[in-house]
Amino acid sequence: MAEAVRKLASELISENFSVISDTLHIGGMSVEDLARRFGTPLFLYDAGILRARLAELRSALGGFADIFYSVKANPNQEILRCFVQEGTGLEIASGAEYLRARAAGCPSERIFFAGPAKSDAELQLVLAEGIGEIHVESFEEIERLDILARMAGRRAHIGLRINPEASAQGGAMRMGGRAAPFGFDEETLPEVLEAIGKRSSLLLQGLHLYSGTQILDAGTLAKQWRHGLDVARRVVASLGRPLQTLDLGGGLGIPYFSNDRALCLETLKDHVAQLRHEVAQSSELTGMSIVIEPGRYLIGPAGIYVCSVQSWKISRGTTFVVTDGGMHHHLAASGNLGQFVKRDYPITSAANLSASELTQCSVVGPLCTPLDTLGRDVALPKMRRGDLVVVLQSGAYALSASPTGFLSHPTPAEVMLDQGAAREIRSPGTFSQPLSQLPLG
Amino acid sequence: MAEAVRKLASELISENFSVISDTLHIGGMSVEDLARRFGTPLFLYDAGILRARLAELRSALGGFADIFYSVKANPNQEILRCFVQEGTGLEIASGAEYLRARAAGCPSERIFFAGPAKSDAELQLVLAEGIGEIHVESFEEIERLDILARMAGRRAHIGLRINPEASAQGGAMRMGGRAAPFGFDEETLPEVLEAIGKRSSLLLQGLHLYSGTQILDAGTLAKQWRHGLDVARRVVASLGRPLQTLDLGGGLGIPYFSNDRALCLETLKDHVAQLRHEVAQSSELTGMSIVIEPGRYLIGPAGIYVCSVQSWKISRGTTFVVTDGGMHHHLAASGNLGQFVKRDYPITSAANLSASELTQCSVVGPLCTPLDTLGRDVALPKMRRGDLVVVLQSGAYALSASPTGFLSHPTPAEVMLDQGAAREIRSPGTFSQPLSQLPLG
Repeated sequence: MAEAVRKLASELISENFSVISDTLHIGGMSVEDLARRFGTPLFLYDAGILRARLAELRSALGGFADIFYSVKANPNQEILRCFVQEGTGLEIASGAEYLRARAAGCPSERIFFAGPAKSDAELQLVLAEGIGEIHVESFEEIERLDILARMAGRRAHIGLRINPEASAQGGAMRMGGRAAPFGFDEETLPEVLEAIGKRSSLLLQGLHLYSGTQILDAGTLAKQWRHGLDVARRVVASLGRPLQTLDLGGGLGIPYFSNDRALCLETLKDHVAQLRHEVAQSSELTGMSIVIEPGRYLIGPAGIYVCSVQSWKISRGTTFVVTDGGMHHHLAASGNLGQFVKRDYPITSAANLSASELTQCSVVGPLCTPLDTLGRDVALPKMRRGDLVVVLQSGAYALSASPTGFLSHPTPAEVMLDQGAAREIRSPGTFSQPLSQLPLG
Repeated sequence: MAEAVRKLASELISENFSVISDTLHIGGMSVEDLARRFGTPLFLYDAGILRARLAELRSALGGFADIFYSVKANPNQEILRCFVQEGTGLEIASGAEYLRARAAGCPSERIFFAGPAKSDAELQLVLAEGIGEIHVESFEEIERLDILARMAGRRAHIGLRINPEASAQGGAMRMGGRAAPFGFDEETLPEVLEAIGKRSSLLLQGLHLYSGTQILDAGTLAKQWRHGLDVARRVVASLGRPLQTLDLGGGLGIPYFSNDRALCLETLKDHVAQLRHEVAQSSELTGMSIVIEPGRYLIGPAGIYVCSVQSWKISRGTTFVVTDGGMHHHLAASGNLGQFVKRDYPITSAANLSASELTQCSVVGPLCTPLDTLGRDVALPKMRRGDLVVVLQSGAYALSASPTGFLSHPTPAEVMLDQGAAREIRSPGTFSQPLSQLPLG
């Protein structure tokens, strides 16, 4: 098992990073140097990887779809700025994400807002400040948004979030095709369209389908997207007028575990060529802007989490590498963010990358709980205090999806590497900072 | 299943809360009134429950052990102050927890510090400011603490954290008896004692055993405590001098799930009477202060999490109650904090408590992920927008153990109820606060 994890780590290193003098480099810079400079635990993001993945995906899409980055994957302000500079729109899920999107320079019309429980304050904010689309998810929201829009003297530009039928499913976590709190069941569309049609302050301009997450099979994605095209054709026909946008959701996965195989963009490209052809043939879809909203796929592989070894100890035959980083910064790697079976993220040392003598280890964090385990069966060279352990695939759903207040350890720095320069994009906390500023102080 | 969950909720309500006009009251105050006053989502803690549980536990212990509250269970500054005022010591696991303990008025000698990866800065802080005991957990730490103590010109008062042998196990999550990163394996004690003996700036004054967590069986606890007494006798005999303290750890559980039965204090009392007798008979244990460090047991039942219904919707036969609260505030209730099988916490409405017409629901939060589920099979009366859903047993490992930054929703308020008054002990965040103050902004 440890061997398979190590193999995935090696593949990811050769894909995205470089090895110089047997040590790991990111964005052309030594991880060891960066750790000395910025301290540990530390998140490092390579803007180059982010841009390369965006460019590759765009190339595979060949103009089929516009890309809106899903802010929830990593909401760091500078990461958003980077995406906006590269021309993506932003898909948000809260009022605070809206403010961050605007602060990152995103034009309001390039922001889509989904979420099953948007508050009045959030809706009032985006109505007042402007937004591309609000994706409505319930009859209750239709009614409330209509009232809020009238109060604001605005017409709300909405998309209809649809929970698709079971015909096109796949991915690690299904979000559609079955009972779900998200959007409207596809089979209820006639009454939903009727309800929207009655509300004069709601302008239906788009559709939004989201079927799953962490999908590694291009055929499954294409199947879901094709289903989205079908739904759009039917809705446009039923409305008797064109729609502006069709948001096909995200769901593009990345390999985390030893048996995962990366999404094949070449295969996706072939599928997309066929989908483009279908769109061109369809009068209902003419002029409709298709959007996808990947998050994890773009930023996940661009980020790594770097921890320092605090002690190397053996208990009853098991070697424990105790580090200064753990589940409070990286819940997903600890296996506590939705995983049914706890499997190891790709973990590597930052040095001695070609070492042949390896020890099977459990990599654990500083918290007083057995849950604080980053890796259960990891092969590492012998390490000493201060040596670095690196968790790969840590750019998405890592720091912002973790219980940073648990045991009140300082929050880590986040550093962006771009064109040979390293810049802190989140200052680290310190435990001696004023109590009011401590995480959950 | 929903019926069993409802039964547990009813039992907990009659034990700790009151029902007036068919609505839930905590600390004699209406939950609906408190939600109107402080907003939702909201954590409410009843200081009366906390004090009552502390008093009951003390009574069951009959002087057998001193109580150190485990800060990690809920580190809110005012909750710590409440425990300190009631005379408990505090068990901490980080430098920031030390600062909070002191800010809560805890005398330094009443603080014990455990943790498998204490940093130099943390150790230097407690050496400089004073602490009851530092519980050392590795040979590496022994060596380093010795150096740091000499640098500080202090003698470090230490306890030895011991990973007990497999003879006395139990509880939902075993922390001892097998390979673990915590402390020293019991069978290595001779060499550990020798290593400590050589370090003149380390004063060994205590032992610390921790065998498990969430233990509901008094006999299991007593068995572990008896094992602790045995170990202490052997260490004292081997040292040839008495020790000051024996920390038997925490591990006292509370019922969360429908098949859990509360720890029986009457049974524990009987076991403890026997243990007291054994201590009195043992010359090695004369004058040794025994400590236990419960957290969850004391504060868990004192806290509830209150959410507002945002929408009540049906998807493909399943009723979803979408609330403004979710896994970002209460990861444990969502089943993503170490649970292998996701089971429902006790959940109730705040009103219509005697309603006989109930709907089987899934209670979900505002995040755009299926993980954001607070209850899978909950029986609730029909609710409307603004009605309240309450998660019981939410005083421990709730807010501070949750990914508050996930999707950037505002952090909730925490309110302490005490002698008929309600006081905000954490101000709620707002999504329009300055970006720098947003959770993980």
